[in-house]
Amino acid sequence: MPDVLQADLERFCAQVLIGAGVPEADAEIIVASIVYAHGTGKGTHGASRLPIYVHRLKQGLMQPETPLTELSAAPAMALLDAGDGFGQVAAIRGMDRAVAMARETGIGMVGIRHSHNFGTAAFIAAHGVGQGMAVQIFSNAAPAIAPTGGQRAVFGTNPMAWGFPTPEGHPPIIFDMATSQVARGKIRLAQTNGESIPGDWALDANGQPTTDPDAALAGSMLPLGGAKGYGLSLVVDVMAGLMTRSASGGQARNLNTPDGPSRCGHMLLAIDLDRLLPREEYDAQMAALITATKAAGAEGAVSLPGERAARTLAAQGSRVPLSEAVLAKLDALAAETNVAALGRA
Amino acid sequence: MPDVLQADLERFCAQVLIGAGVPEADAEIIVASIVYAHGTGKGTHGASRLPIYVHRLKQGLMQPETPLTELSAAPAMALLDAGDGFGQVAAIRGMDRAVAMARETGIGMVGIRHSHNFGTAAFIAAHGVGQGMAVQIFSNAAPAIAPTGGQRAVFGTNPMAWGFPTPEGHPPIIFDMATSQVARGKIRLAQTNGESIPGDWALDANGQPTTDPDAALAGSMLPLGGAKGYGLSLVVDVMAGLMTRSASGGQARNLNTPDGPSRCGHMLLAIDLDRLLPREEYDAQMAALITATKAAGAEGAVSLPGERAARTLAAQGSRVPLSEAVLAKLDALAAETNVAALGRA
Repeated sequence: MPDVLQADLERFCAQVLIGAGVPEADAEIIVASIVYAHGTGKGTHGASRLPIYVHRLKQGLMQPETPLTELSAAPAMALLDAGDGFGQVAAIRGMDRAVAMARETGIGMVGIRHSHNFGTAAFIAAHGVGQGMAVQIFSNAAPAIAPTGGQRAVFGTNPMAWGFPTPEGHPPIIFDMATSQVARGKIRLAQTNGESIPGDWALDANGQPTTDPDAALAGSMLPLGGAKGYGLSLVVDVMAGLMTRSASGGQARNLNTPDGPSRCGHMLLAIDLDRLLPREEYDAQMAALITATKAAGAEGAVSLPGERAARTLAAQGSRVPLSEAVLAKLDALAAETNVAALGRA
Repeated sequence: MPDVLQADLERFCAQVLIGAGVPEADAEIIVASIVYAHGTGKGTHGASRLPIYVHRLKQGLMQPETPLTELSAAPAMALLDAGDGFGQVAAIRGMDRAVAMARETGIGMVGIRHSHNFGTAAFIAAHGVGQGMAVQIFSNAAPAIAPTGGQRAVFGTNPMAWGFPTPEGHPPIIFDMATSQVARGKIRLAQTNGESIPGDWALDANGQPTTDPDAALAGSMLPLGGAKGYGLSLVVDVMAGLMTRSASGGQARNLNTPDGPSRCGHMLLAIDLDRLLPREEYDAQMAALITATKAAGAEGAVSLPGERAARTLAAQGSRVPLSEAVLAKLDALAAETNVAALGRA
């Protein structure tokens, strides 16, 4: 894959976003999320999203500003309306509010209403962990998973993420997962490569298990571990969608389909560890947990969640590899928005 | 299976527990948890636990009282020490404390330190939901799951549970799951029936996949969905074990093995829905979500989590079926503790 300079990518994304009416401080958050996604091997949540944002903004399906109007509040809780703005901006600012409340009351919970996909959940988790907090992040999404016993998708692949600080020398523990058996991207990859998929990944449009990636993409994803994944995706839909007064029960819309604002929601928790237990004890126990986990397998065979991503991120340096397909889309976007095209490094 | 009268079972369990030094109010909670387990089809968390409790109390591996000494507190958070007492008592009282805080601050979090298995998590969730709260309950447990890439068990099957109120006429949504691929009980059942097990359930003591239930029980359980179940069991170990100053990283002990107090921990969250959004809106959206979920399949094919358990519970009536094996153990316990044996109905 061709490389671009990270600084060039950042400048390009910021110019395009600001040109589309996104406030400068918000563009900074979105750009950081894009760069983080590439750095942690989640390119699907990276620069390829930029043309989607710009086209949605033009069509009025998404708003350039993310107001975060307060709908309700209590000492340890707030519900904020993102006004169909950017998920990354809503989630990062929402997390800051949760952190501030946690410092006062021990735990802070922020619900975000009427938002869009916030990119990789690990980016939001890392932001909270960087402030010394243990965090939990749920987001609902457009229907992709059929409930167990059913054929039609109701729940999203609804990400769940947790993050925990670690003592000096260990990367933070950042765990995020979708509640589907596999990511939809794996099915798209099989489609691109002309391969069939295992029979427990997806159902076709008639609700029958399928090994054909085309049929799978027209149907629904199977939930992680059967009824457990169904239960988890429902839990996230209730907490992040219904309880935040966002779309739930199959009403949220996909970022990629131009049929309306996504109206998904997020539920963010921050826990102030320093209010809970002595930090030295936390650090010592966390070091012991990491050691015990790694000792369960051969040298180097067991990784803690977030460890591989941290290694990739550290190795990223100043260059970001982008596929020719993504670069072509960014070139078209440059022409369309009168921004200088992104140079290859 | 032979039946006993529920009232007789309640009286018998209470007499045995009180005779072993458990305070009357605590015995009431434990008995209610046992009856609830049988009523919801989780007999493995029911009366068969009674002899285990009594023997652990006699050996000093468990304490009859559950002090819940406060270790730290903030307006929305408390950490309580269960003093090696009963998990059910600690979790029900802890949930009450979380609910009381949530009414003041929107959300309440209670960590429980040095506890024991709290029986079925659904019982604790139902208790919080009955007070109008949305709840989340995590508990860690003795090592049973090897981390992905490893061979030795470090994390427990660590239950996760959530509960949400529903409008009049629908049973509450109560979802609980273990973070292993299947419950250990399914392997025990295969062992009893002389059957082999699927190759993705467990590893033998050498860390190799096995279809032999004996080898599986001597080895470790495979996590739900591979790396996702590993991540979830780790998250629960950190939140319910490490953050509560309980045993974590493989140090918690099993209720069934007489090698020390279990020292597991629980993390309980209660969210006051009335502080978050109007109850009429919550109820209307929840009714729509339930309707959409059921409409995803043929009539009666899709159940909401907790629905089947609620039906079983409603059908339970005044009788509890107990296996001959469990009844024999309870008869032996009766003789041992000088309590009148449990009559068959």
